[in-house]
Amino acid sequence: MAKLRVHNLAMSLDGYVAGPRQSLEDPLGVDGEKLHEWLFADDRASIVDDLIERGENGIGATIMGRNMFGPIRGPWGEDTWTGWWGPNPPYHHPVFVLTHHPHPPITMEGATTFHFVDGGVDAALALAVDAAGGLDVRLGGGAATVRQYLRAGLVDELNVSVVPILLGSGERVFEDGITALECTESVTVDRVTHLRLVKAASPS
Amino acid sequence: MAKLRVHNLAMSLDGYVAGPRQSLEDPLGVDGEKLHEWLFADDRASIVDDLIERGENGIGATIMGRNMFGPIRGPWGEDTWTGWWGPNPPYHHPVFVLTHHPHPPITMEGATTFHFVDGGVDAALALAVDAAGGLDVRLGGGAATVRQYLRAGLVDELNVSVVPILLGSGERVFEDGITALECTESVTVDRVTHLRLVKAASPS
Repeated sequence: MAKLRVHNLAMSLDGYVAGPRQSLEDPLGVDGEKLHEWLFADDRASIVDDLIERGENGIGATIMGRNMFGPIRGPWGEDTWTGWWGPNPPYHHPVFVLTHHPHPPITMEGATTFHFVDGGVDAALALAVDAAGGLDVRLGGGAATVRQYLRAGLVDELNVSVVPILLGSGERVFEDGITALECTESVTVDRVTHLRLVKAASPS
Repeated sequence: MAKLRVHNLAMSLDGYVAGPRQSLEDPLGVDGEKLHEWLFADDRASIVDDLIERGENGIGATIMGRNMFGPIRGPWGEDTWTGWWGPNPPYHHPVFVLTHHPHPPITMEGATTFHFVDGGVDAALALAVDAAGGLDVRLGGGAATVRQYLRAGLVDELNVSVVPILLGSGERVFEDGITALECTESVTVDRVTHLRLVKAASPS
């Protein structure tokens, strides 16, 4: 059974996965880049390499929210936007973008195709599972997308890195009512705590 | 200069320091006791002993909210409540209880005296600093009390232990706008991450 997995989600101590006032200049919100310094550090710990590799292994499709695909809101219009990642995005498999506005698929170099799904989170998951051909599906951001799948109880594995900074405001993934995940691993390096949570066994 | 310090504050991964629906049976709210299993475990790690000792060293007075003192709400009436801790509470110094309702001091065995302060958080801090006689002041709970002092920028040191469980709802200490603390230490043992944060240097 294909799993839906979140990897390398970075969260501040006060629970924010993005800072306030997201914009083209601050795609992660004000100070949001501080959440990812551990990920992009030149001297990053080898455990971080392991975590990145884990997030790429066995993945056959990706789901993301429209905000993660691009800064455009509302109807697509005459746009020529093809994502943040240049002509050869680092996915190399089908990517399903949640949107309220239909858009034809975009085929990129390197076997990445962006599909646009306006049927909601369940429809996107069904399409992604099918496209993954027996491999797992990775759930990207942003916060609202992860929160929707968590609330629906559809996330099988969540890898979250707690960065001990306070952003003061921004977007949370853990809001009221999300409880059905259990921690199975914890490792702290350079003051960042990397946790692996998996779907809790259903009460019998 | 006396410092205001919080010790052994336990917080869930989703940011709650107490569960929902606090009551006499569940003083920490539903499932709130799961936040403190690391503290009360028979086989607790030696680092936990160190953290407990650190929280007792150099403390000359304590401040707490009324909910931490007892379950009584509103006017005191004819109550004979003297706290949760029996005739000889583990403080052995003056304790200042925040309340909206005046109450005469209560002198307990072992040099603990409960003083009741109806003048707000600043007044309680001034009284506690004075009573501490050059030692530091410890800030107890509950969540609302810690949050008030954090919002006022009055907390010099916050020791928080992040427990990788999801409570789903409850009381937070980190709400919008609290940012002026910096992490200086992090250690994870038995999947609980113990962080020390100190007041950030003011921008010059």
